[in-house]
Amino acid sequence: MSAVSGGEKVATKTAERILFTSLDLFNEHGETAVTSVDIAMELDISPGNLYYHFKGKEVIVLALFDMYRHKLSRILAAPDPDLSLQDFFCFLYLSLDCSSLFRFLYRNPTDLMEKYPALSRGFRQLLLTREETVARQLDYLRRNQQLKLPADSLAPLSEQIGLVFSQAANYYLIKEQMLDQKGFIQKCLGSILFLLRPYLKGDSEDVGVLKELIGELRFNQESSDE
Amino acid sequence: MSAVSGGEKVATKTAERILFTSLDLFNEHGETAVTSVDIAMELDISPGNLYYHFKGKEVIVLALFDMYRHKLSRILAAPDPDLSLQDFFCFLYLSLDCSSLFRFLYRNPTDLMEKYPALSRGFRQLLLTREETVARQLDYLRRNQQLKLPADSLAPLSEQIGLVFSQAANYYLIKEQMLDQKGFIQKCLGSILFLLRPYLKGDSEDVGVLKELIGELRFNQESSDE
Repeated sequence: MSAVSGGEKVATKTAERILFTSLDLFNEHGETAVTSVDIAMELDISPGNLYYHFKGKEVIVLALFDMYRHKLSRILAAPDPDLSLQDFFCFLYLSLDCSSLFRFLYRNPTDLMEKYPALSRGFRQLLLTREETVARQLDYLRRNQQLKLPADSLAPLSEQIGLVFSQAANYYLIKEQMLDQKGFIQKCLGSILFLLRPYLKGDSEDVGVLKELIGELRFNQESSDE
Repeated sequence: MSAVSGGEKVATKTAERILFTSLDLFNEHGETAVTSVDIAMELDISPGNLYYHFKGKEVIVLALFDMYRHKLSRILAAPDPDLSLQDFFCFLYLSLDCSSLFRFLYRNPTDLMEKYPALSRGFRQLLLTREETVARQLDYLRRNQQLKLPADSLAPLSEQIGLVFSQAANYYLIKEQMLDQKGFIQKCLGSILFLLRPYLKGDSEDVGVLKELIGELRFNQESSDE
């Protein structure tokens, strides 16, 4: 027998529907443009019912951020010191894929963090952890002789990759380069490959293989399994 | 005798004061957070007086954008095919300096362009022109043998520089790296030098000179003279 009653199951299901509908609306129109009433209308439930599950839009935004943090933290956890260049690109792919699911967070992070101080510290911490994880992986690749990277280039290179991760979507949007999710991820991976290219050892062969992987978005995704 | 009457002079002066005060407030708090009434209060004039000069906040935003476009366009105009690396960094410096004076435009460009469609096309065009101008200068440097840059690297390198130009400020803000205007410009120039470094020919000597120039922000600024 389940410990969860039928009523609780329905409530959980409604809460989930609210979260996923909000995520879609935020991603499509931006968080600022979407109200609680919009969300209720989209779901065809009363604003009172919505309020029963989430006490306001802030609670929804924070719950979505928690989902994002949970997912991304698993991708960032404990990189393998023996990683290959392909493993690194697989990591980049997973990280970009996860972030593009929650892309409303990157649309206007400055205002979002000012509006929701409860989100601010966690989001900042997550971005710093991601940049540190990238730096650590680059350092492993350097020690494994897969990258000819001077030690003092680790920090600026990780920062440039962080910039692509968190700001490229807005830049493409401003320039009106319309990309679907797949096209966006491919373009970001291509930019990061460009950044790494001067430091690749085997060069042409590695680049060829990586370009092919990026073109097909076929990465060994063991680490993404739940 | 001046063709401008005393009353007109006062009106022009008030209009200027409104613009510069608005610019300060927008840069400090973000355009979204500042209302016409805030601007009038800061200037100690009545909202009616403000309205006499500018029919709403949109008109002020557009007037400021026009100032920015005018200034930046002069910097972007007709780069010299014989330019040196130092000339290129002088151009980057002037361009960053000008943009940081109008930094509210870069705080949240996606929402700003959606809110003010009249700004949207001009801003997009300006960013594209800047990226093209950077690409053209990189190409000159390549042809002058100052950069060992493969031809197919021009576009991705210009795009990465464009990303630093237009998005780095937000990225530093999110990471809580607090920088004053000078520190911000130095950090951006340092990032761009890092991007170019693999392609520099003389390397160590050039890098030393450029690092010194960036450290002191002392560039030959002929091209900025009015």
